[in-house]
Amino acid sequence: MANKARDLETRLERIDQELRLLQRISRYLSTEKSLGQSLDSIVARVVEFTSCDSCLIYLLDKKELVLCAASGEKNEESLGKIRLKVNEGLTGWVAREKTFLALTCEAYKDPRFKSFSQLVEDTYEAFLSAPIIARGKVVGVINVQHRQPHHHSGDEMELLSTIGEMIGCLAQVVHTRPEDLAMAATIELALSTAVVRQS
Amino acid sequence: MANKARDLETRLERIDQELRLLQRISRYLSTEKSLGQSLDSIVARVVEFTSCDSCLIYLLDKKELVLCAASGEKNEESLGKIRLKVNEGLTGWVAREKTFLALTCEAYKDPRFKSFSQLVEDTYEAFLSAPIIARGKVVGVINVQHRQPHHHSGDEMELLSTIGEMIGCLAQVVHTRPEDLAMAATIELALSTAVVRQS
Repeated sequence: MANKARDLETRLERIDQELRLLQRISRYLSTEKSLGQSLDSIVARVVEFTSCDSCLIYLLDKKELVLCAASGEKNEESLGKIRLKVNEGLTGWVAREKTFLALTCEAYKDPRFKSFSQLVEDTYEAFLSAPIIARGKVVGVINVQHRQPHHHSGDEMELLSTIGEMIGCLAQVVHTRPEDLAMAATIELALSTAVVRQS
Repeated sequence: MANKARDLETRLERIDQELRLLQRISRYLSTEKSLGQSLDSIVARVVEFTSCDSCLIYLLDKKELVLCAASGEKNEESLGKIRLKVNEGLTGWVAREKTFLALTCEAYKDPRFKSFSQLVEDTYEAFLSAPIIARGKVVGVINVQHRQPHHHSGDEMELLSTIGEMIGCLAQVVHTRPEDLAMAATIELALSTAVVRQS
């Protein structure tokens, strides 16, 4: 019984942590912060809440994925410079296939792997990656990496997928002015289903 | 010890449910569904996952809050018709004060209350409400109501606040075309902080 309680406590702690991470990230969805600031904050929270050694966010510029946010000061100079095509590397594969990818160890030996000499993450063992999705389309990729082999649980994969969906929405926010929201046009769109139902 | 395990199991179940609710709602942030369809789905999920008897979503049209989504078929004809000023009723108070409101019982006796004869919810005892926020501004309100008195936990309040933030982001999505996202402009915004850091 003591074992069961300990096990329950561990699970409770983990799920509570995941819930708090999503709640923290959802704050950025509604703030006035710039996209850059929000992505930096998201990367920091992901590193803080998970036990990963690196978190990288790529956004799509036409057909190229551009590194836009990264944990670790050493990666600052790579921001905006590392660009990869959607058919390049593990990250490109995730964008192309619109699905997450989890590699427990030796990610660098995967046939889809492509090395960028600037990134120390290229030597890391474990790789978890999810597409950033907006309105059904891939607009980026978020990667979480561990130096040592790491078994990714189903919960971890689902959590990163959810974060990818939230970032997709966030990336759209920056193209809208808040004053455009409190408009008849938004209400019309909101009521479109109701009109269909009543007709 | 058996009591402790039971207590832990109950808490685990509740938190797991909250996590799954946020994950389900985040799906709508990234889909191609219309705003109307997404709001309808969110209302259905909130009713399904919480034990509430009603969930209503109002969006701001200039200075009026318009009922845009509601649980219960009986409320369909009120959609788009019930409009209240931001200084009217409990819902208006939440929009004006940009904070959530939790009333355990006799919500209809609150001095801020305003009755709309069409809404059966006006006779309900418990009232939980959170602002829908986009880019720091209130763009709507989400209400969760119980027929009988109901004590709202801190978790329930925080959960509804998070859902309000997610809906705020969702309401912006509809004003952006997906093709506008995969653009140099998004990358520039994403890198703006990095530029500041490096300069």
